[in-house]
Amino acid sequence: MLRALGLTCALASMSAMADAPKNIIFFIGDGMGPAYTSAYRYYVADSDVDRVTPTVFDRLLAGSASTFPHDDTVVTDSAASATALATGVKSYNGAIGVDADKGPLDSVLVKAKQAGWQTGVISTSQVNHATPASFVAHAQSRKDYQEIAEQFYSRRIDGKPLVDVILGGGQKYFSLEEQGLGSKMVDWGYQYVRSFDALPELTQTPAMGLFADVGLDYAIDAEQPLRLSKMLDTALRLFENKSDPFFLMVEGSQIDWCGHGNDIACAMAEMTDFAAALELAEAYAKRHGDTLVVYTADHSTGGLTLGNKGNYRWDAKVVKQVDASLMVINESIEGLSGDALTKALAKNIAFEFSDNERFALESLKNHSDSRYWLLVEFVSRRSHTGWTTKGHDAIDVPVGAIGPMSDKFVGYHDNIELGQSLIDLVN
Amino acid sequence: MLRALGLTCALASMSAMADAPKNIIFFIGDGMGPAYTSAYRYYVADSDVDRVTPTVFDRLLAGSASTFPHDDTVVTDSAASATALATGVKSYNGAIGVDADKGPLDSVLVKAKQAGWQTGVISTSQVNHATPASFVAHAQSRKDYQEIAEQFYSRRIDGKPLVDVILGGGQKYFSLEEQGLGSKMVDWGYQYVRSFDALPELTQTPAMGLFADVGLDYAIDAEQPLRLSKMLDTALRLFENKSDPFFLMVEGSQIDWCGHGNDIACAMAEMTDFAAALELAEAYAKRHGDTLVVYTADHSTGGLTLGNKGNYRWDAKVVKQVDASLMVINESIEGLSGDALTKALAKNIAFEFSDNERFALESLKNHSDSRYWLLVEFVSRRSHTGWTTKGHDAIDVPVGAIGPMSDKFVGYHDNIELGQSLIDLVN
Ligand SMILES: [Zn+2]
Ligand SMILES: [Zn+2]
Repeated sequence: MLRALGLTCALASMSAMADAPKNIIFFIGDGMGPAYTSAYRYYVADSDVDRVTPTVFDRLLAGSASTFPHDDTVVTDSAASATALATGVKSYNGAIGVDADKGPLDSVLVKAKQAGWQTGVISTSQVNHATPASFVAHAQSRKDYQEIAEQFYSRRIDGKPLVDVILGGGQKYFSLEEQGLGSKMVDWGYQYVRSFDALPELTQTPAMGLFADVGLDYAIDAEQPLRLSKMLDTALRLFENKSDPFFLMVEGSQIDWCGHGNDIACAMAEMTDFAAALELAEAYAKRHGDTLVVYTADHSTGGLTLGNKGNYRWDAKVVKQVDASLMVINESIEGLSGDALTKALAKNIAFEFSDNERFALESLKNHSDSRYWLLVEFVSRRSHTGWTTKGHDAIDVPVGAIGPMSDKFVGYHDNIELGQSLIDLVN
Repeated sequence: MLRALGLTCALASMSAMADAPKNIIFFIGDGMGPAYTSAYRYYVADSDVDRVTPTVFDRLLAGSASTFPHDDTVVTDSAASATALATGVKSYNGAIGVDADKGPLDSVLVKAKQAGWQTGVISTSQVNHATPASFVAHAQSRKDYQEIAEQFYSRRIDGKPLVDVILGGGQKYFSLEEQGLGSKMVDWGYQYVRSFDALPELTQTPAMGLFADVGLDYAIDAEQPLRLSKMLDTALRLFENKSDPFFLMVEGSQIDWCGHGNDIACAMAEMTDFAAALELAEAYAKRHGDTLVVYTADHSTGGLTLGNKGNYRWDAKVVKQVDASLMVINESIEGLSGDALTKALAKNIAFEFSDNERFALESLKNHSDSRYWLLVEFVSRRSHTGWTTKGHDAIDVPVGAIGPMSDKFVGYHDNIELGQSLIDLVN
C-alpha cells in the first residue's frame, strides 16, 4: 500500500534497505487480537499509569490485518487463517494448506526450502496442529492429525527434509516405537529430543524436539514458562551452523486456548512467553541487520475486551493474583467443600472469595464444567475482563515488523497479502 | 518512532514532503474501537466474501493508539481522551482541556488560531460536548455544559473569535433570545443558521450552524443521515474564502452513543456517516496536496466484538434488516401487544420474531428499559454481535492519515503523542 512517509525515509533507508532480507522469522500469536496486545501492555505495568511503557508489540507495530475466511461467515478458524498467512490464498475453515477447492498450495516455508533456505517451525501446540501444519502439510481437514504428522516425513524437497527444525508438542504423533513416525525420522537423520533439558543435545539439522504428548502445558502452569524463547534460541543456534538463509515460523499457540477458556491470567502468561520470544527475535534482527521479523495473529479469540458491565476499569492486579490456569484450579477443587475448598482456592488465587461465591462453587463440586465457568465469572467480574464467546471473533489483528523490507507491512492488509509478501521475499 | 520503511520512500516522498501541511483535518470517531472499523468493512460488503474491499479507514490506516487516562483505571472517558488528543497531555476522566491538577491547557486548535490559522469544530453531538469542548474550552467537569458553551464566545485570540466555524448540535446552549449566548455571538459577527437547508446562507466566517436542541438525531433515524459530509463541505467552502491555513476537528460523536446502547445497526449508520466525511477529506487531501487528514478514536465503546456465544459468524445482513435505532423502535412499541406489536416491529425490523420473543416483549410492554435490552439481545443473537459493557473499554484504537507528514502517525502511539504531533505541526 502506497503510504505517505516522508521524513523518516532518510533514516529508515539505513535500516530497511530495498534489499530482501536474508532470513525471515514469522511470529503468529494464535488468537492474539488487539485486545490481547493492549491488555498485555497494562498487565506488564500492573495497571499503574506511571509504569505504562511500549511493549515489543508496540515497538514493532506496523498496522493491522483482516482475517475473514473464504465464505460468508467473516469469522475464521486457525486453519483457514494459517493457510492464508502461509500460502497467500483464502480458503475455508478447516483447510490445511489447500484452497477452497481442496487443491494443494505451496507455503512460504516450502518455497523457501525450494530456494535453498533452511526452514523451521516452533509451536507450543503439537507441531501438527492447524497453524504449523498449514506451513508444512496439505489436508482437507485440520483434524487429520496423523496424516498431517506423516507429511513432516513424507514431503521432501530434492530428497531432503522439508523442515530442518521442528520444536513443540506432539510426541504422540511422532512415536519412537519401531516403525513409529519418530523412529523413521531418526533413521532418516533427525536428531530427536523429548525434554527441554536435552535441547543442548541438538547439534545439527535436521532436528526435532517434542516436549509433550500433545500440546505443552500452559505457560502459567509450566515449570518452564518461557518455552518459546528456549525453542527459538535453539533454532537460531542450529541455523547458524550453516550460512544458508532461514525461514522460521514461531507460533504462540495457546493464547488461543486460554481465550477459548475465557481465562485471562492464562492468556497473559502465554502473552508473556510470546513477547519474550519476540523480544529475542527483535534483538537478533537489530544485531544482524539481515533478518526480517514479522508478527501477527491468525484471528482474535474469545471476544476479549478490557472493561465489562459498565465499569470504567480493567485491573491487571487481579489478573496477577491468579497463578494457575482455571482448568488446573478447577480440577484442584473437584469434590471439595468447606475449609478444604477454601484452602485449595487459596493455593492459586490470592484474592478472597465471598461466602456466596464459595457456596456456589461448593454446590457445583461435582459439576466440573459449570464450576469452571463460574470461576471464569469470578475472575472476570473482579478484573473487569469482558468475553463474548468461547469461539473466535472477526476483529482485525495487529501486524508488526522490523528489519529489511519491514515497510511492506505498514498499514492495512488482508491476511493473504501478508502471506503473499512473505512469498515474494523468499522467491 | 523510527521504523524500517525502504522501498516506498521514493514514491512516498512525492506525496508526503518533509514540508509541514498547510491545513489539518482531524477526525475523531467517538467510541470507534477497532471492532467498529472491522465491522464496517463487512457491513459495507454485506458479509459477502466476494465484496469485501478496503474501506477509507483501511486505505488510510497507519497504526494504532493507546487511550488510558491519568489514573489506574486504564479505561478512559471521552473528556480525558479528547484532552489528550487536543493538548498532548494526560488528564483525568471528566477533564476538559485541563491537566491532572486542573490547570488550563492550550489545545492544538488554540495554538493554530494563535499562529493565524482558521479554525473549526464539527460534531454530531452538541458542540459543547466533551470531544469538541476539549479543543475549545477549559472545564474541571465535562458536565459544565453552559460554562463550556460560554467559552466559545468568551475565549478570544487577539480580540477575535477562537473558533471560526462551529457546526453540530446544541441550540439549547446557544439561544437566540435576548442576551442568549447565540444572540451575543450574532451581535459579535457570527452568521448563525439552525437547519441544514439554511447552510448555503453561511457565506463567511465566523459562522455557526446548530441543527438540534442537543445532539443531532441518530443517523439511522435522520432524514439527512450524511450530516457530517454536509457540515464538512460547508466548513471547507467557508475556509476557502481566505488563503489562511485551517485546522478543523470533525467528530463522529454518536458512534459512542450507539455503542453505549449496544445498538449495532445504529453504530453502523454512524460509521457510514463518519466514513463518508472521511472520504470527502481524503479526496480533498488528494486534490490539494497541502492538507493533512488524520483519523483516530478517543476509545472503544461497548466492548463490541464480531462473534458471540460460540458462533463463528457475524452477519451484516441481519444488521441491515434493522432500519431505526433500537431507542426509537423501543418507543414505538411502548404499551403494545398482539397484532399491534407485530405490526410496529415489522415497520422497522425486517426479520421475523418468534412467538416467544413477541411474548417476552409483550410482557415488558410497560417496562421501557428492560424491553430495550431485550431488543438488543434479539438483534445481537441473530447477528452474532458481542457486547461486554454499556460503558467504554481499554482496547487500542485505529489511527490513519494521508497527506504531508502523515508518516508521523505510522506505528504505535499513545494518544498524547498524537496530540503532540498535531501541535508540532501547527507551531
Ligand atoms: Zn481457536
Ligand atoms: Zn462514551
